[in-house]
Amino acid sequence: MEAVTASAPAKVILFGEHFVVYGEPAVVTAIDKRAYATAKLRRDNQIRIESLSLGVSGIFKGKRFRPEKGGAKARLKLELAKQAVQQVLEKADAKQGINVRIDSEIPVSAGLGSSAAVAASTIVAASSLLGVELSSRQIFRMAYESERLVHGSPSGIDPAISTYGGALQFQRGKDFVQLGIQANIPLVIGNTNVQRSTGELVASVRQMKSRYSSIIDPIIKTGGELALDSVEALKQGSLQAVGDLMDINHALLCAVGVSHESLDRLVYAARKGGALGAKLTGGGGGGCMIALAEVARLKRVAKAIERAEGTAFLARKTDQGAKVES
Amino acid sequence: MEAVTASAPAKVILFGEHFVVYGEPAVVTAIDKRAYATAKLRRDNQIRIESLSLGVSGIFKGKRFRPEKGGAKARLKLELAKQAVQQVLEKADAKQGINVRIDSEIPVSAGLGSSAAVAASTIVAASSLLGVELSSRQIFRMAYESERLVHGSPSGIDPAISTYGGALQFQRGKDFVQLGIQANIPLVIGNTNVQRSTGELVASVRQMKSRYSSIIDPIIKTGGELALDSVEALKQGSLQAVGDLMDINHALLCAVGVSHESLDRLVYAARKGGALGAKLTGGGGGGCMIALAEVARLKRVAKAIERAEGTAFLARKTDQGAKVES
Repeated sequence: MEAVTASAPAKVILFGEHFVVYGEPAVVTAIDKRAYATAKLRRDNQIRIESLSLGVSGIFKGKRFRPEKGGAKARLKLELAKQAVQQVLEKADAKQGINVRIDSEIPVSAGLGSSAAVAASTIVAASSLLGVELSSRQIFRMAYESERLVHGSPSGIDPAISTYGGALQFQRGKDFVQLGIQANIPLVIGNTNVQRSTGELVASVRQMKSRYSSIIDPIIKTGGELALDSVEALKQGSLQAVGDLMDINHALLCAVGVSHESLDRLVYAARKGGALGAKLTGGGGGGCMIALAEVARLKRVAKAIERAEGTAFLARKTDQGAKVES
Repeated sequence: MEAVTASAPAKVILFGEHFVVYGEPAVVTAIDKRAYATAKLRRDNQIRIESLSLGVSGIFKGKRFRPEKGGAKARLKLELAKQAVQQVLEKADAKQGINVRIDSEIPVSAGLGSSAAVAASTIVAASSLLGVELSSRQIFRMAYESERLVHGSPSGIDPAISTYGGALQFQRGKDFVQLGIQANIPLVIGNTNVQRSTGELVASVRQMKSRYSSIIDPIIKTGGELALDSVEALKQGSLQAVGDLMDINHALLCAVGVSHESLDRLVYAARKGGALGAKLTGGGGGGCMIALAEVARLKRVAKAIERAEGTAFLARKTDQGAKVES
């Protein structure tokens, strides 16, 4: 086999970010922006990773790294895909060298699960190239492990979405539930391009919760109730209700202090542009927001977000998880 | 006696607007912006009301009205003070004619209780002029009754504040509680100058509540809990906690859909300008917001609000209720 290309989707959190830390359910969906990984055999036992989207490349030989493009910093950006390849090589018990070329449509550092999609697509491409058959569960475990090795302790939401696609309900300490939602979920994703640290925001919520527990605890519980209600609304395909719940969820996230002026600006712009609802997605404090809209209004909402100084693109739920492309 | 001038203060809702409709407590304070009423005896039995602040005047004779300034529409603007005078005349069992001149520092139609302050100050001026002694309770009842005759069914918060001054806790179906807060409450009040209908906003919350009761009910309950916590923070003089609670309260009001882009803009501006906390006050959908700040920062916060296209003025709690001035 000459080369194998595989892909895996990005994710957005529809409901429940932050509250999920305290045991409440979150609802997450795969979206039709994908990372693509193309794997080829090498004649040696080195691993070459090239990221077209990040503009970096280099060769891993054991623990050593030789940058080709992007200098020494390239290693950090390529480490994840290398870990993904290594997981597959270990499973295959092979000492084979492999080239992987990554090309991703997913904005990085935007809370959209770009890393997990890179890991999952790389795992599928490399395993397919080597003729190793992996179950979805195994792909998920390997993507999770790659993320864990590079980024610390991820929640597992991102590799689950990238592996399985579709919409999932996620709750700490429980297996995620595939929701099997039939309805299209037409979204506009708006990036504030404001940098933020999810870790710091999680810490600030914890501080608020300890200081004002009589207020913040019921807000968190209400956020969990809202996520459960959203599952019903999504299953019924009631976009208006999903939109209303997004608006309320956004306000609850404001209440625990994780919104940001730039996010609220885009949220208001989207609503005025005709969105059924809008909220921040992910860690908050900047980063991305999502707006739900009738398909015919998506472009108008996107324009409204752009006029409010955001970067906008359209997205919808995809049921296509990690898969071989060719 | 030649003439008597009396005054009564404006109010702001510090915590609990809208949630108070569903039986939760609200916390309201009198602020040092006052309406002044000067009463003089006439030689006839007519009632002449002049509002310097509204630029209208006219004479009531029985059920008839003769405008002097402001045309036929002047009646609507002067009716409240006339009702207040009439309450006092009935109490005095007098057929005496009276001139009342109103001069108010309180912005009208801004949710700051301008009407109640006009009513209370007029009642105190007229009763003092006629030598009728009224208890605070009687002043309150008369101001309430004047408002009821002109504006329909008021909650009673506004006449209570205008009469008693200070900060009150108010709960539907219960007597209000005078909180006896020692601390200064240094505020900036920002007016969006966006018109809105409190009635429509109250109705839209009711609709949200009936549609999403599993979420809106606990939000309302949490709003009540927050108001109770604020009383503790106010009593302890912990301005930082009061500010934090304002921020959370604002978000809960966003969650029930009563904020407005213009309000959020001023709220963010105030926070960036150094406020300890900020929130909409009153009905929302436009109207006014309040920001709490250390005294040394008040002017900076006011400037930030003005730069964000609001009209700002400084205010603080006053314990001076309705009273004779001279």
